[in-house]
Amino acid sequence: MAPVRIAVVGLGKIARDQHLPAIAANPAFTLVATVSREGDGVPGVPHFQSLDQLLERGPAIDAAALCTPPQVRHELAAMALARGTHLFLEKPPGATLAEVAALQGMAQASGATLFASWHSRFAAGVAPARSWLAGRRIDRVQITWREDVRVWHPGQAWIWEPGGLGVFDPGINALSIATHILPQRFFLKSAVLEFPANRAAPIAADMHFCDTHGAPIHMDLDWRQTGPQTWDIVVETDAGRLTLSNGGAVLALPDRTERDEDREYAGLYAHFAALIRSGQCDVDVTPLQLVADAFLCGRRREVEAFED
Amino acid sequence: MAPVRIAVVGLGKIARDQHLPAIAANPAFTLVATVSREGDGVPGVPHFQSLDQLLERGPAIDAAALCTPPQVRHELAAMALARGTHLFLEKPPGATLAEVAALQGMAQASGATLFASWHSRFAAGVAPARSWLAGRRIDRVQITWREDVRVWHPGQAWIWEPGGLGVFDPGINALSIATHILPQRFFLKSAVLEFPANRAAPIAADMHFCDTHGAPIHMDLDWRQTGPQTWDIVVETDAGRLTLSNGGAVLALPDRTERDEDREYAGLYAHFAALIRSGQCDVDVTPLQLVADAFLCGRRREVEAFED
Repeated sequence: MAPVRIAVVGLGKIARDQHLPAIAANPAFTLVATVSREGDGVPGVPHFQSLDQLLERGPAIDAAALCTPPQVRHELAAMALARGTHLFLEKPPGATLAEVAALQGMAQASGATLFASWHSRFAAGVAPARSWLAGRRIDRVQITWREDVRVWHPGQAWIWEPGGLGVFDPGINALSIATHILPQRFFLKSAVLEFPANRAAPIAADMHFCDTHGAPIHMDLDWRQTGPQTWDIVVETDAGRLTLSNGGAVLALPDRTERDEDREYAGLYAHFAALIRSGQCDVDVTPLQLVADAFLCGRRREVEAFED
Repeated sequence: MAPVRIAVVGLGKIARDQHLPAIAANPAFTLVATVSREGDGVPGVPHFQSLDQLLERGPAIDAAALCTPPQVRHELAAMALARGTHLFLEKPPGATLAEVAALQGMAQASGATLFASWHSRFAAGVAPARSWLAGRRIDRVQITWREDVRVWHPGQAWIWEPGGLGVFDPGINALSIATHILPQRFFLKSAVLEFPANRAAPIAADMHFCDTHGAPIHMDLDWRQTGPQTWDIVVETDAGRLTLSNGGAVLALPDRTERDEDREYAGLYAHFAALIRSGQCDVDVTPLQLVADAFLCGRRREVEAFED
């Protein structure tokens, strides 16, 4: 099978750190173009200022990876899907749930593959954690996701704008893992969201969920943690404790600990290639739905202004 | 077929004004119990302080209508569905999207009918409006929903609490109509939500949506309108203007105006009976999804405190 001719749209940190190396390492894909309003692209690969320009006068493409901020993603996605271009959406798949539903409709109509990716689901410990939890009784879950926004999102103004999610930008990674490994659905009972006085998005959140069997799930989400960073999910079960740490990379079970090298984006692109080959879509909006629920029902608290 | 033995849970204004008369007028149902923490129920019908008590020592029921505030609806709904009781949910179907998804899963598992009702969809002008718009090109939509909260929700504290939706409590009625009559999906582009300084829910919202063909949809939602009230949807099309006013009761088309008596709850209960007979569910969360999107992505503005 000829490699899938792919373009990467939005050459920010995540595209350069993860997408370009993963595409280069996967023989199922060949990078034929990059798009970004600013900057230079990649040596030897045609570069365009906009997706419009690429589609008008660039090389033919079969697929595109959208790595732009969520607030501008929908228009680009709709433009590509209308031409039957297979789409890899960075997380979150859109700024709103309704626009993602609209994209699903377009993908169905055009026959293109739509992949709403959640990279954390491809962390090394996640698949074995899911297998181990299947069928177990869940007694209690603690999700702790505390990091330093100044380290991970330096100067990224869009993340503090409406639709930018604030601390839910990392928090949605935790939710993408939890919704994937826990055997029951869960939903919000109460939440407090802390908004800096000068920002439109939260810097911290404290959330209580409950699964359909009544097990409590507590989530502590904070962007003000300096020093060691914490990305842990601890699940108490009838067979003992499971701890998934380092954002899903390290899995500790009662009888063993597993750690493996990072392969999130390699896994994502392998999955995208398989979806394209089989003509399927993979769009699970559950993590974004839980975030929307937190904004809908959470109590808001104003906290100290945040300056980059 | 024997009448469906139904209980009404939550005897607030909507239950007394609408549900009880509609059930009394429909021979497919017989009211066998009422539930509310306070008050007296209905002469001649067994009354219980809680759904627990009804299920433990009350008469057998086949169905229940949940008319409690959305913040406490899920627990009652789950309790009823677990026993295979058919459920009629007042709008909105829950405080969160994820809890409604969980109820859908439970209904599927138990074989019970779950009906997430949107009463405005049963207003007299809505079905003919939907038929008239099918297949037309939509150029522009204006939704104006302005009412006086002091008249319609006097002293209802829950409506201002997180999960109570504020002005989206009436606004979701407009969205339930718009999502039903417009031929294309639509999604949020931008929103400004106005929160009184002393309240956790918005008193007004200004929203710009866009449908999948690019048509702009503007929504003006306000709870501070004294004097005449406005519940209008105006749709400009390639065949002229459609105006749905009085909350869906009056339909004006280029060549005629239709007005009919109010039959929303009669229509809802006829539909619920048909769903039970055919073993189906009707759960469309699109209106609640659009509201969640507005909270997720809308810009927030603080306005003057509101006192009842």
